Amino acid sequence: MGIKSDIIKTWDFKSGKLNKITDVPGVKVGHFTIKDKINQTGVTAIIPHEGDVFNEKLLCSCEVINGYGKSTGLIQLEELGLLEAPIMMTNTMSVGDVLSGTNKYMISKYENIGKKSPAPNIIVTECNDGVINDMRSMAIKDIHATRAILNATEDFSEGSVGAGTGMITMSLKGGIGSSSRVLNILDKDYTLGSIVLSNFGRIKDLKIDGRKIGREMYESFKNKEIEREKGSIIIVIATDIPLSNIQLKRVSKRATVALANVGSIIGSGSGDIAITFSTANKIIDEDFHNIKYISDEHINDVFRASIESIEESVLSALFHAETVKLSSGKTIYSLKDNLKNSKLKL
Amino acid sequence: MGIKSDIIKTWDFKSGKLNKITDVPGVKVGHFTIKDKINQTGVTAIIPHEGDVFNEKLLCSCEVINGYGKSTGLIQLEELGLLEAPIMMTNTMSVGDVLSGTNKYMISKYENIGKKSPAPNIIVTECNDGVINDMRSMAIKDIHATRAILNATEDFSEGSVGAGTGMITMSLKGGIGSSSRVLNILDKDYTLGSIVLSNFGRIKDLKIDGRKIGREMYESFKNKEIEREKGSIIIVIATDIPLSNIQLKRVSKRATVALANVGSIIGSGSGDIAITFSTANKIIDEDFHNIKYISDEHINDVFRASIESIEESVLSALFHAETVKLSSGKTIYSLKDNLKNSKLKL
Amino acid sequence: MGIKSDIIKTWDFKSGKLNKITDVPGVKVGHFTIKDKINQTGVTAIIPHEGDVFNEKLLCSCEVINGYGKSTGLIQLEELGLLEAPIMMTNTMSVGDVLSGTNKYMISKYENIGKKSPAPNIIVTECNDGVINDMRSMAIKDIHATRAILNATEDFSEGSVGAGTGMITMSLKGGIGSSSRVLNILDKDYTLGSIVLSNFGRIKDLKIDGRKIGREMYESFKNKEIEREKGSIIIVIATDIPLSNIQLKRVSKRATVALANVGSIIGSGSGDIAITFSTANKIIDEDFHNIKYISDEHINDVFRASIESIEESVLSALFHAETVKLSSGKTIYSLKDNLKNSKLKL
Amino acid sequence: MGIKSDIIKTWDFKSGKLNKITDVPGVKVGHFTIKDKINQTGVTAIIPHEGDVFNEKLLCSCEVINGYGKSTGLIQLEELGLLEAPIMMTNTMSVGDVLSGTNKYMISKYENIGKKSPAPNIIVTECNDGVINDMRSMAIKDIHATRAILNATEDFSEGSVGAGTGMITMSLKGGIGSSSRVLNILDKDYTLGSIVLSNFGRIKDLKIDGRKIGREMYESFKNKEIEREKGSIIIVIATDIPLSNIQLKRVSKRATVALANVGSIIGSGSGDIAITFSTANKIIDEDFHNIKYISDEHINDVFRASIESIEESVLSALFHAETVKLSSGKTIYSLKDNLKNSKLKL
Repeated sequence: MGIKSDIIKTWDFKSGKLNKITDVPGVKVGHFTIKDKINQTGVTAIIPHEGDVFNEKLLCSCEVINGYGKSTGLIQLEELGLLEAPIMMTNTMSVGDVLSGTNKYMISKYENIGKKSPAPNIIVTECNDGVINDMRSMAIKDIHATRAILNATEDFSEGSVGAGTGMITMSLKGGIGSSSRVLNILDKDYTLGSIVLSNFGRIKDLKIDGRKIGREMYESFKNKEIEREKGSIIIVIATDIPLSNIQLKRVSKRATVALANVGSIIGSGSGDIAITFSTANKIIDEDFHNIKYISDEHINDVFRASIESIEESVLSALFHAETVKLSSGKTIYSLKDNLKNSKLKL
Repeated sequence: MGIKSDIIKTWDFKSGKLNKITDVPGVKVGHFTIKDKINQTGVTAIIPHEGDVFNEKLLCSCEVINGYGKSTGLIQLEELGLLEAPIMMTNTMSVGDVLSGTNKYMISKYENIGKKSPAPNIIVTECNDGVINDMRSMAIKDIHATRAILNATEDFSEGSVGAGTGMITMSLKGGIGSSSRVLNILDKDYTLGSIVLSNFGRIKDLKIDGRKIGREMYESFKNKEIEREKGSIIIVIATDIPLSNIQLKRVSKRATVALANVGSIIGSGSGDIAITFSTANKIIDEDFHNIKYISDEHINDVFRASIESIEESVLSALFHAETVKLSSGKTIYSLKDNLKNSKLKL
Repeated sequence: MGIKSDIIKTWDFKSGKLNKITDVPGVKVGHFTIKDKINQTGVTAIIPHEGDVFNEKLLCSCEVINGYGKSTGLIQLEELGLLEAPIMMTNTMSVGDVLSGTNKYMISKYENIGKKSPAPNIIVTECNDGVINDMRSMAIKDIHATRAILNATEDFSEGSVGAGTGMITMSLKGGIGSSSRVLNILDKDYTLGSIVLSNFGRIKDLKIDGRKIGREMYESFKNKEIEREKGSIIIVIATDIPLSNIQLKRVSKRATVALANVGSIIGSGSGDIAITFSTANKIIDEDFHNIKYISDEHINDVFRASIESIEESVLSALFHAETVKLSSGKTIYSLKDNLKNSKLKL
Repeated sequence: MGIKSDIIKTWDFKSGKLNKITDVPGVKVGHFTIKDKINQTGVTAIIPHEGDVFNEKLLCSCEVINGYGKSTGLIQLEELGLLEAPIMMTNTMSVGDVLSGTNKYMISKYENIGKKSPAPNIIVTECNDGVINDMRSMAIKDIHATRAILNATEDFSEGSVGAGTGMITMSLKGGIGSSSRVLNILDKDYTLGSIVLSNFGRIKDLKIDGRKIGREMYESFKNKEIEREKGSIIIVIATDIPLSNIQLKRVSKRATVALANVGSIIGSGSGDIAITFSTANKIIDEDFHNIKYISDEHINDVFRASIESIEESVLSALFHAETVKLSSGKTIYSLKDNLKNSKLKL
């Protein structure tokens, strides 16, 4: 945890206790991981709150920053602005199985689903881990979705774990990263956290705290054969700040700034998607809804905190991921091992 | 087939040979159907052209008329405007399995997918057939997607078949409907066709050729318990008219007019989605693309033909669907049987 | 007023006292009209509530049904979802002068605008009245915007008045139309009203209560030379039902159904825009906003009432407009005169 | 010109001859400037090509990065994807007069406008120059639009000129900035250029080439009273690379990355809009259009070049703007004067 906030000296906001998205009260994250000779992949589940997720829906909005991606559930999210199930992450070819598995989990938990209740809208997001993982073998099965959900905890792992197992970021080993920020608005502390499934970019573009470290590392760089930008990034932002759907969408849009800050150009083939939810208002089955949200006078601080958190989440994914040797003989080096090799210091 | 065009005397355009979407050269449709005591459901596949669908992509655009739906593949379609796989239809809870199954079909057909080639963007659309079909049993398996694809033919069935097996429209038995129109533009004949998975509306709103037949039928109506609007409609439009992505989106948007013409109010809980593709330009792997499209001077005729075709497709679904008796004892009557009962004539 | 609701026997909802948008408490409408040998045009202003419109903002959302139009103010409306000035209507070439004039009105009323306060977001909508009015002479001046605003009243005129002076609808004389509906939701009466600046369509497509009256009138139709669809329609919907921004957008989208019901195909060259606001929540300068809105369980009735109201507003524009003889010798006949001529009865 | 490219050593692309948007063949830019005791404001016009702009339309798309703005013309641009008039820039309260003036220019040039031809769709963009300029006096008149258009030239001025006269960027004097890039695609050189009306951000966030120079300057900063982020940025990108409408929109979206690179958080009150057009295809009045565009295989280079160019355009605005003393006694310092004062070197 300390590893993350130490990299950059100029953060405007302090982080929460774990410096993870789970610092937002009620949020939990679970992983299911496969690591064998053929497959290095998995599933990650974000549980939005501790209550009845299906019947106490949260306000949620998304932004498709670049739509080269196969995520599900965003159409209905855009129409209604409601989150009613865990948010799932996996590899591109496993979206169907994770969707099916999460539906089965919901069916088993809610006996009215598919009868009196409508079907749940399930958000399954993905990045392509085809360099490290044999996606064609479709190793993720429906039950793995349930296992990721049941594994959910506050102090979850980062790096090459869950859906992040086979991911690559900036030509380095990537994966799951997370962080949080504490904001004081009108004398009250709120928490905003983010988690990323990070799988985008190329080494030459990597920036840390403004420093173009990727260019410095390039000469001695060991993963040059994977330098072309590919892949995607999924960003989930949670907060207990009361925000309206319009505001949640506006927070999602600012994710692009965080991506730019670590060197992304939002590459053409990158499925870059940000999803933001607030735990402050719960929408239950009643005739009128009453919701509360902060004035836009205070929203720039929310934007800043979310940008910082996402930036640190990407760096955290890079710092937690470990060098991996593939059965093909290829090695995908971690940021730490590449820094060591290049004798650069952050 | 004749049954369809005879209902309405005031069509502006004549229909094609089969009066189905498959009148557009190269388009084929296949069904896989399950009908047993527990499940009445299925899968329908629309094959966009006779060539290599993955490597000869078509221009395609969609409109989410009302986003209360769980379709996949629309995010990337919106970003790139390209169709590169069969368009699939099924029930809401089976989207995951059909997505997974279509991915497996694509993997088996294209050995580079998931290796050198990116993963295909697969559009799986859905409506909720939970009144007739036990969605919770998730009877559709991945292999059923392949079977629907392999069943594709020009002279496909309409009504309670494939994904349409368990659907209800305007409180009547619904399902799959299709039709086509022939347009003469600048002394050349073009074809535009549509297919619907029709599962929306309530009897009181039904209109045929402007006549509020639903209100006339209401008194003697047998399905009053399912009169509340639920469900959705998926609309796929194909044409050989050369259209740009912007024009394809604009055609998709006009589907709302056709829905209004049969009595829809675009109900809140209805996932109404229109997808339009043109077979006139094929996008292959080359450094520059050259595409041709008609001037907007001629586009209103394309709008009119598509509105007519969709309107007739919905009516065709109603006229082809047969009364079904559920194991619960409930009966969902067809339009024909309800007309008979009410002694009304069209 | 009676003239309107009598046409159609099958309305589901009763209308308000005036059967105009001003039945929504606080809403007022004002016109400024020019009718001389060269110009037949004007400005119409919709005042959203009786309080301080700039400092007590309303939730408001729009839908660009077809964007062939030059309206201003919709970008910021889409971003923030707030209405903070009168909604203006005029002819296409006069948008600039009406925008400038409304800014001047706001400056004169609010001394902080352009200093401490940001500039107001002013919505100016338009249709092209170039057949009847010489738009090139740009007869509307900035002061005319203020005059329309100051003329605002509850019992405003319909037909060829204000911005509607030079408009044509379905090849007939068009203009301003309005209506209202009363809805009972949870034992409380609410009002929803609409006003249209109607300038779209062609005679062959005209439908009244499902009857294709346009086709019946066509043989003896006197305005055949203007039968090609041109022009646009601007639709403003007001209500005192508590609605969220997402719901206001969804209401706006259903305007397409109303247009289809009177025969529109949403022609390519038609700038069709719907704007919906609710007077139930006022957003003032405070740290937190608390808003209330109805459950989506009740939203279909809101959709139905808005569709009915818009449909009647278009018909009301047609029934109120009078035949006009142009200085060119051309005559644009009213619906009433065309009906008389064709010996048809509604 | 040299001043610009020298700042950053790490550009990937070389600039064109003038290092301005006018390096794209046919593009011209003109200013009209007012500088007196009350007003410091103006108009800037971008002429998209040398031919008949109204009858030889260009493909063009925009992205509303943050919609807190009052620009006109974007609705129709989004619907049709066509540019058919000069793109205008001015202050927020003068949009109406510039729109009206540009309409008058078009009327005088094209005698069919408002008769047989439809009204032109005119894009007028704006930023709020209320700190320096008295917007309430509405000093810009309609004729000033024409004067800006007629002043168009290749070697236009940057900094505090035209619409940029009263603008502030990163709490420093801002205004008009421009730059260009030359890309070699498939052995052919293409040019991409950009121009910005820059009026956003706060000093603490300023970054140059990754260096957080704003923080370094902050202690000795002279404009602390205007440090809160306000204002907006308008970005226009031109290129002779053949691009489709979808690609032009995707280029527009990447402008956010450039803004982030100079320190923007896309502030809540900032109207950030990017408009991109290509001169490679001209859409004239014919039955079929044939357009050519590059494969997405080459699009990342276009993204990179546009991001670089926009980044340099913002810096160029800062480097060209001169310190201004207001009649109120306040002084808005330029970047150069602030650097001098802080004894920092770039």
